[in-house]
Amino acid sequence: MAGNIFGNLFRLSSYGESHGEAIGGVIDGCPSGLELDFEAIQNDLDRRKPGQSRIVTQRKEPDEVQFHSGIFEGKTTGTPIGFAIYNTNQKSQDYGHIKDSYRPSHADYVYDQKYGHRDYRGGGRSSARETAARVVAGAIAKQLVAPMIIKAYVSQVGDLTLHTPYSELDLNAIEANDVRCPDATMASAMEDLIMKVRKEGDTIGGVVSCVIQNVPIGLGEPVFDKLHAELGKAMLSINAVKGFEYGSGFAGVRMKGSEHNDAFNSDGTTVTNHSGGIQGGISNGMDIYFKVAFKPVATLIQPYTTIDKDGNTVETKGKGRHDPCVVPRAVPIVEAMAAMVMADYMLLNQIHKNQL
Amino acid sequence: MAGNIFGNLFRLSSYGESHGEAIGGVIDGCPSGLELDFEAIQNDLDRRKPGQSRIVTQRKEPDEVQFHSGIFEGKTTGTPIGFAIYNTNQKSQDYGHIKDSYRPSHADYVYDQKYGHRDYRGGGRSSARETAARVVAGAIAKQLVAPMIIKAYVSQVGDLTLHTPYSELDLNAIEANDVRCPDATMASAMEDLIMKVRKEGDTIGGVVSCVIQNVPIGLGEPVFDKLHAELGKAMLSINAVKGFEYGSGFAGVRMKGSEHNDAFNSDGTTVTNHSGGIQGGISNGMDIYFKVAFKPVATLIQPYTTIDKDGNTVETKGKGRHDPCVVPRAVPIVEAMAAMVMADYMLLNQIHKNQL
Amino acid sequence: MAGNIFGNLFRLSSYGESHGEAIGGVIDGCPSGLELDFEAIQNDLDRRKPGQSRIVTQRKEPDEVQFHSGIFEGKTTGTPIGFAIYNTNQKSQDYGHIKDSYRPSHADYVYDQKYGHRDYRGGGRSSARETAARVVAGAIAKQLVAPMIIKAYVSQVGDLTLHTPYSELDLNAIEANDVRCPDATMASAMEDLIMKVRKEGDTIGGVVSCVIQNVPIGLGEPVFDKLHAELGKAMLSINAVKGFEYGSGFAGVRMKGSEHNDAFNSDGTTVTNHSGGIQGGISNGMDIYFKVAFKPVATLIQPYTTIDKDGNTVETKGKGRHDPCVVPRAVPIVEAMAAMVMADYMLLNQIHKNQL
Amino acid sequence: MAGNIFGNLFRLSSYGESHGEAIGGVIDGCPSGLELDFEAIQNDLDRRKPGQSRIVTQRKEPDEVQFHSGIFEGKTTGTPIGFAIYNTNQKSQDYGHIKDSYRPSHADYVYDQKYGHRDYRGGGRSSARETAARVVAGAIAKQLVAPMIIKAYVSQVGDLTLHTPYSELDLNAIEANDVRCPDATMASAMEDLIMKVRKEGDTIGGVVSCVIQNVPIGLGEPVFDKLHAELGKAMLSINAVKGFEYGSGFAGVRMKGSEHNDAFNSDGTTVTNHSGGIQGGISNGMDIYFKVAFKPVATLIQPYTTIDKDGNTVETKGKGRHDPCVVPRAVPIVEAMAAMVMADYMLLNQIHKNQL
Repeated sequence: MAGNIFGNLFRLSSYGESHGEAIGGVIDGCPSGLELDFEAIQNDLDRRKPGQSRIVTQRKEPDEVQFHSGIFEGKTTGTPIGFAIYNTNQKSQDYGHIKDSYRPSHADYVYDQKYGHRDYRGGGRSSARETAARVVAGAIAKQLVAPMIIKAYVSQVGDLTLHTPYSELDLNAIEANDVRCPDATMASAMEDLIMKVRKEGDTIGGVVSCVIQNVPIGLGEPVFDKLHAELGKAMLSINAVKGFEYGSGFAGVRMKGSEHNDAFNSDGTTVTNHSGGIQGGISNGMDIYFKVAFKPVATLIQPYTTIDKDGNTVETKGKGRHDPCVVPRAVPIVEAMAAMVMADYMLLNQIHKNQL
Repeated sequence: MAGNIFGNLFRLSSYGESHGEAIGGVIDGCPSGLELDFEAIQNDLDRRKPGQSRIVTQRKEPDEVQFHSGIFEGKTTGTPIGFAIYNTNQKSQDYGHIKDSYRPSHADYVYDQKYGHRDYRGGGRSSARETAARVVAGAIAKQLVAPMIIKAYVSQVGDLTLHTPYSELDLNAIEANDVRCPDATMASAMEDLIMKVRKEGDTIGGVVSCVIQNVPIGLGEPVFDKLHAELGKAMLSINAVKGFEYGSGFAGVRMKGSEHNDAFNSDGTTVTNHSGGIQGGISNGMDIYFKVAFKPVATLIQPYTTIDKDGNTVETKGKGRHDPCVVPRAVPIVEAMAAMVMADYMLLNQIHKNQL
Repeated sequence: MAGNIFGNLFRLSSYGESHGEAIGGVIDGCPSGLELDFEAIQNDLDRRKPGQSRIVTQRKEPDEVQFHSGIFEGKTTGTPIGFAIYNTNQKSQDYGHIKDSYRPSHADYVYDQKYGHRDYRGGGRSSARETAARVVAGAIAKQLVAPMIIKAYVSQVGDLTLHTPYSELDLNAIEANDVRCPDATMASAMEDLIMKVRKEGDTIGGVVSCVIQNVPIGLGEPVFDKLHAELGKAMLSINAVKGFEYGSGFAGVRMKGSEHNDAFNSDGTTVTNHSGGIQGGISNGMDIYFKVAFKPVATLIQPYTTIDKDGNTVETKGKGRHDPCVVPRAVPIVEAMAAMVMADYMLLNQIHKNQL
Repeated sequence: MAGNIFGNLFRLSSYGESHGEAIGGVIDGCPSGLELDFEAIQNDLDRRKPGQSRIVTQRKEPDEVQFHSGIFEGKTTGTPIGFAIYNTNQKSQDYGHIKDSYRPSHADYVYDQKYGHRDYRGGGRSSARETAARVVAGAIAKQLVAPMIIKAYVSQVGDLTLHTPYSELDLNAIEANDVRCPDATMASAMEDLIMKVRKEGDTIGGVVSCVIQNVPIGLGEPVFDKLHAELGKAMLSINAVKGFEYGSGFAGVRMKGSEHNDAFNSDGTTVTNHSGGIQGGISNGMDIYFKVAFKPVATLIQPYTTIDKDGNTVETKGKGRHDPCVVPRAVPIVEAMAAMVMADYMLLNQIHKNQL
């Protein structure tokens, strides 16, 4: 209930602060007999890790995962998979300047109010560092849900919006550039914008789009655990996310029912897919697609005015190595959370597949 | 796990189909000693019920709730509150025309695929009728979370968008018109649009905005159960919802961090509130506000082409009494789900309020 | 979390007090397509109901269950099954004498302390009346787990103990007498003892034994949710239960490993079954058997001394119609709880049956 | 749902096999601000560890716990506490003899059937090694629930039974001998019996008794999550446990209600305590006491006949270093599970303590 466990049958218990000994987790409920591709797991971690390109934070963290249990001879055993990633580059001295004041639009203030103290060495538990544990579990979930394919990409940075629908994009080109936008021209413009913003010591928001293909029909548990509701919660649990929409989303509001309805083909597929692959909370076999809005990162490398614990006004200045825009590194996190939801709902649906 | 239970400590188990004997639920975890205002509960049911105005479905259902347990001498006892609303106006004959075919963008097809059959007498469990149980539980939750105030209203119908921020609206004027938009001029235009769409036998989408005031600091459980993540899931679980955003939402993506950050006042409140009252998943005491996008209702009173169970093309026509636009009746549902989340998270936060 | 929901995938949310409007529940997670035998459900309710024989309480309650949802054309639909049993014979005037005092070894005192008040009209939520909801859900679970067979019987009343192992008893003879002991001679002695105790205005304890046959191999979730751990919790949740043992139980303590170990036959069955059909928390296909100890009912029809709310000593006297011995009516309750556990664990095991 | 998570608000996610890299866990929901006594944690691990005395297995494992998160400056922070204990003495070669056959009354066979394979290097997940993670979490829970005191001791080994009630024993003498029985004469006899059984290459069962003192009134959630039901499940989840009874237990069956009822003193305490400190599933402030029955360990150092994977009869012989009697090392495990239950229910009860 304290919020560090995700999922129902495929469950991740996550732990770890940015400046503690290690982060890690326990995956409970992964079925036995899954042959793991460890390179793919590390590859997703590398896509998330700091320092991977010039447009992200320049912190260096190797982010190597150690598995402690649940795997024997390269396969899952059905028992819980414990894992840890040791923190090797903590530099807590970088954060001394924030020990006595609250950073605007950070979680400092509310953590202090809720827990009666805070780990001032950095973001602590509110740091995006915890998402590395999500990526490990998500990378395993991806392998479990195959042949489902889950691909995310950056579709907006600031005002720069990629309007091309996903079906007209080459999703294999996502990793061809640092910003992870499959349109090369747009990618280049986005990178320029991020570099410009970084030079100003400022940050900028963005949108990550995600597509899930080869989805079996029937995933989703009405009424409170609709598939898109759980996907939405999963995305909104990622740091800095401010919005989620799937299928026609907010734009669908403007449509009439006669335009929006997806007519059936004779095989049960639909001619259009405004529904985004989900009807009544249950997958209908069409592609699932959704968008996730990320706010601009709160940490600026600029002077700012804020308050200390006693409410006194203080002048301070952001330091350290931070992301000017979070979305390039958020791409594998969005995929990971999507994969965990799909794995969980695939397992939940077994009781119906085995019905009487 | 089958999706009909909502919440952690304040829990609703909901049941009921549109054409069964009754709908209802069990609320487990409501603390003892809450003096209930039964009129307020019925009032919220009346705001949701069909037939309440000319712009909603003309079905007539009294929607009177019977409480079976958990209340003694007008107060909650701490034991589960069982309740039922009997279905009195089922008219399943109205639905004979859909028995043998799948309605586009309805849940017919996926229910049939998932459960191996369907209750063809109407929407069954996928009908919005089940939301009446949510409204009962939400009305009790509202009383539990007082002095928090939860108010929702219609801010968009089709292309008609109310751009005025909530803080400049008179939230006491929401119930002054049938569409539940606090701006009288806009309300009138929205009602005209809905009547026009109804005449065409068509439907139109809309947006419900919601504001939560007097929120204590500290509600929300990092990292997976962030307060806005649970609010998002709650909203996305409502029929026809396609998107959720809070605070600056999708528009915040275009902002720079220097614009978006909410500077502190000396008392810990913030000058602006782009954060939407939540930092790092935890309430910061400022107003929480969010938007919920509803697609146009799928049921049209127009001829349409679809498929039957064998994949044959059939020509059919929507009949019955349906909503041309769902948002006026969705307002109390949005409030109810918000209230249940706030009640649940208020209780979850007790372990921290009572810390050592 | 408030304790009125049982199970993981097959879930009962139960509600209701002895003197409220109705008791009932919601079963969520029953797979679709189960053709229900409604007579069997009512039959189990009749086995539990008061007034069924001279050795139980003489209260008369028809205990007829109304199903509100989740069933269509005689089959489960996969949606939640809501049900209610109206209280028709409340006679709360019978309980006026206990309004101002706490009955020894009842839950009056602790309910008052925990919830800040109590429903003095009788046992309220702590009354065994709530077990009727368990019997409804259990009767459905029994049908779901077929061909598993679950049979309970009375094996001890006071000092009268049936030492014959279950395998030498005719389990079809359980219902042949009022006390539900399959040995006719012992049954007769037990009934005499109960009638004697009743005449004294006193009560006596007893033991219910239960056997589960035709169990598939593999049910049970290590490590915390071992099959026998969940069976134990299920039984200990029944009113008046003080102990649970399975297989060799407390007597097994005295054995050496060389005596206790169950040697394998070549087909994987075992020669002996001291294990009680469960190894390491997982069913091994042998019969599961266990015992449940019930204390003597606390309500006596004798004068007694106790305290009132202010701690003053008061002299009072039990009135009303109570069971002199709870075990004859507990037999279907033990079966019901066992059936719910087996249904739940059968569904939980689907993820392993469908492994990669 | 896969069974490796224990608790509701105070939650342990446990992982690890006997021959893997490490065992460990994540504790989610421990309130912030608890100053930890790390020596007390290690002390409980030392009471559980192999090789501590001549009457337990002679394996040597240091069992040193590393904390990865959730603790800052010696205090809990309210974020999850991740921890690991590395396996340093695995000697999997010891187990080669069991790779191809199933050991009687072990979990080998059912694991293989359930998961489609097994980790033949030892007990794997079914090994009691996993209980070290319980002891870590329990040692923290003990500190959280103070001033509650939780003390367990050995009250029976084979036929040797300590009949003295706990209230007449010196519970501070428990650790004075290797067998952890507070009666020195009985302890000596028990040790002799265990040594005799060991020499025979055999094993023997035992009973652990546990007392919880200074319990606040009101812990326990009716109806399915009664305090003793959760204690029972917690105990039955420990390896080798076959039975649980609390208060008067199985012996109470023989009593009449007039003997069994606990009369009130004017302060709400009771004259006797047959109830074992719990009424209607809720603590009444009196001492809680219960007994846990452990079967004889299945691993014998004797030749035995069993089957291999193909059902062929094979002759084999137990090797390795095993416990002749599990109860001396089970004492801290029983305490740990009891502490976790009490911590969880103390937190669950906050919603009632903070009632309106």
